[in-house]
Amino acid sequence: MITVALDAMGGDRGLVAAVEGAAQLSREDADVHVIAVGDVPRMSEVLEGARYDPTRLTLFHSDSCVTMDDKPREALESKPDCSILEAARLVERGEAQALVTAGHTGAAILVSAERFRMMPGIRRAALASVYPTESRHGPKRDPFALILDVGATLAVGAEELVGFALMGSAYSAVISEIPAPRVALLSNGTEARKGTPAIVEAHTRLKGGPLNFVGNVEGLDIPKGTADVIVCDGFLGNVVLKMLEGISDVFMDITRDASSRSLQWRIALSMLGGGLRELRRLTDFNHYGGAPLLGFEEVVIKAHGRSSPRAIRNALKVAAKAVQGDLIGRIRDGVTALRLDEDQGASG
Amino acid sequence: MITVALDAMGGDRGLVAAVEGAAQLSREDADVHVIAVGDVPRMSEVLEGARYDPTRLTLFHSDSCVTMDDKPREALESKPDCSILEAARLVERGEAQALVTAGHTGAAILVSAERFRMMPGIRRAALASVYPTESRHGPKRDPFALILDVGATLAVGAEELVGFALMGSAYSAVISEIPAPRVALLSNGTEARKGTPAIVEAHTRLKGGPLNFVGNVEGLDIPKGTADVIVCDGFLGNVVLKMLEGISDVFMDITRDASSRSLQWRIALSMLGGGLRELRRLTDFNHYGGAPLLGFEEVVIKAHGRSSPRAIRNALKVAAKAVQGDLIGRIRDGVTALRLDEDQGASG
Repeated sequence: MITVALDAMGGDRGLVAAVEGAAQLSREDADVHVIAVGDVPRMSEVLEGARYDPTRLTLFHSDSCVTMDDKPREALESKPDCSILEAARLVERGEAQALVTAGHTGAAILVSAERFRMMPGIRRAALASVYPTESRHGPKRDPFALILDVGATLAVGAEELVGFALMGSAYSAVISEIPAPRVALLSNGTEARKGTPAIVEAHTRLKGGPLNFVGNVEGLDIPKGTADVIVCDGFLGNVVLKMLEGISDVFMDITRDASSRSLQWRIALSMLGGGLRELRRLTDFNHYGGAPLLGFEEVVIKAHGRSSPRAIRNALKVAAKAVQGDLIGRIRDGVTALRLDEDQGASG
Repeated sequence: MITVALDAMGGDRGLVAAVEGAAQLSREDADVHVIAVGDVPRMSEVLEGARYDPTRLTLFHSDSCVTMDDKPREALESKPDCSILEAARLVERGEAQALVTAGHTGAAILVSAERFRMMPGIRRAALASVYPTESRHGPKRDPFALILDVGATLAVGAEELVGFALMGSAYSAVISEIPAPRVALLSNGTEARKGTPAIVEAHTRLKGGPLNFVGNVEGLDIPKGTADVIVCDGFLGNVVLKMLEGISDVFMDITRDASSRSLQWRIALSMLGGGLRELRRLTDFNHYGGAPLLGFEEVVIKAHGRSSPRAIRNALKVAAKAVQGDLIGRIRDGVTALRLDEDQGASG
């Protein structure tokens, strides 16, 4: 049995979605035990009407949280018993093996940095996001790809980019079950000499290394799914990810407007059926499992602030899968392999 | 009469599209004279079957060009009479007032840097691209926005970002006829303190300056059209622009696949009519006029390599409009206004 600590407060859709998601998982999965951290009277109220398995979902009290409008550092200092800190402490004490939160991203990063150790050989943390791509690689290829960093570390050197590549590859192998994920650097051209000095140096170090490094990719490769893992600094990744979300919003607006416009439109949209669903799937983030925060000795998953109960359930499942597949051990192995490789390269 | 020198060779769709576009314009616009630079026998052959006005379209011979596979610096040295150089010389000698090319972007930048003077107060050139947005600002608001730099200058400081903002604002005012274009810095958050040190400093300098500076925007604002002019460094702009193109390609693929799939799909797509056209418009770059290369004392427009005759015609019209609206003078005025403003700020 894997135990996951869930920070059940602080998301935009809040405690209800978190508790409902955990209740849903408790009914279907025998291998995961969730400790939901939040206001127990309010959580109990949500559970009163719901079906759930009390052996797989327990409650832990905390009556404060970091809100989306808080400045995270100040909030964490003034609320020492807030839900994200209590959830992290459960992991720190070994009472849970993973942390899931739909709360403030900055708070999740700060708490992890304070409470958990960085992995040896990894200098900076990265937040990774799964996003949908056009899948043109046969039915067996996962249509999702991973991009990191999307906001934990703004400016990076080659060392950090190589670390992100390692962590992303391990995550993709464990969660998407791709044996040798195609790893790429995001740049302004595919040639090895293209990009910032950090990218050019990281390219040299990754080439010929233990990962399945496919070189540089460009912006147009992001939606196409040319790579399984796309590596960039947190500033660029943040812009890219929010742009994908923005295009999703625009697409939703247009199809929603359209369907309210006329009967002809509504008929046409219903006739498109599956194809339109495919288009929406390509741009709709809501049903994904969440973004792993990588670089620490513990599994941390950040669910989207707007998460539905289903998205919370998926984030909990992903966290359990990461523990089960020994994500942390695989990243450690990757660091070791890369070092051996570079030592051989240096002596050879 | 405004004269535009057109480098008619080197684009992916080549000389035929360029000459056809110029011929098309000669039939409809009395105020523009195009000098098409390229292989005269081949251009004459294209014109033989076409209708055009010979008082508004003349030919200038050059039998070599920088191809898309060439390394631009070497190609320019080994082909001193190539079409882009001959076209630039026409502008240099005052025989034309603007340069349009659908050829190699790097070559266009190099030739401009060698042949034309930089504008006083502008340190680095920027390539700007027009892209479509979701227009939600009433029927009178132009649904297109401008993003710069998209690849002329990879790494920039605050000084360059401020220069890009000035040039983009002037271009948007002249070409899109927006009296006070909303100018924004692309960053990882809307707060003034968000972004790289260069962005934070540029924010301070633009705030309270003569432009209609609306602050920082995020990735999701790009497709939404929150700003008329989005300013960033050439590395980020390159990734963003190629990503927009990639999403366009994916969208085309899906709707094309879909329409070949079944009769039901084809009927549904035809019923969607205008709405689908709106979606395509949002993602289809082919019919835009081209990207201005800003920072020089001359008007330079880079048409997309895949340009159709219609896109070439549009690029020629945009070039003429930039001359007519005194784009260069307006940028000069902007530099002066910003300096006065900063001097007053410093003494106040």
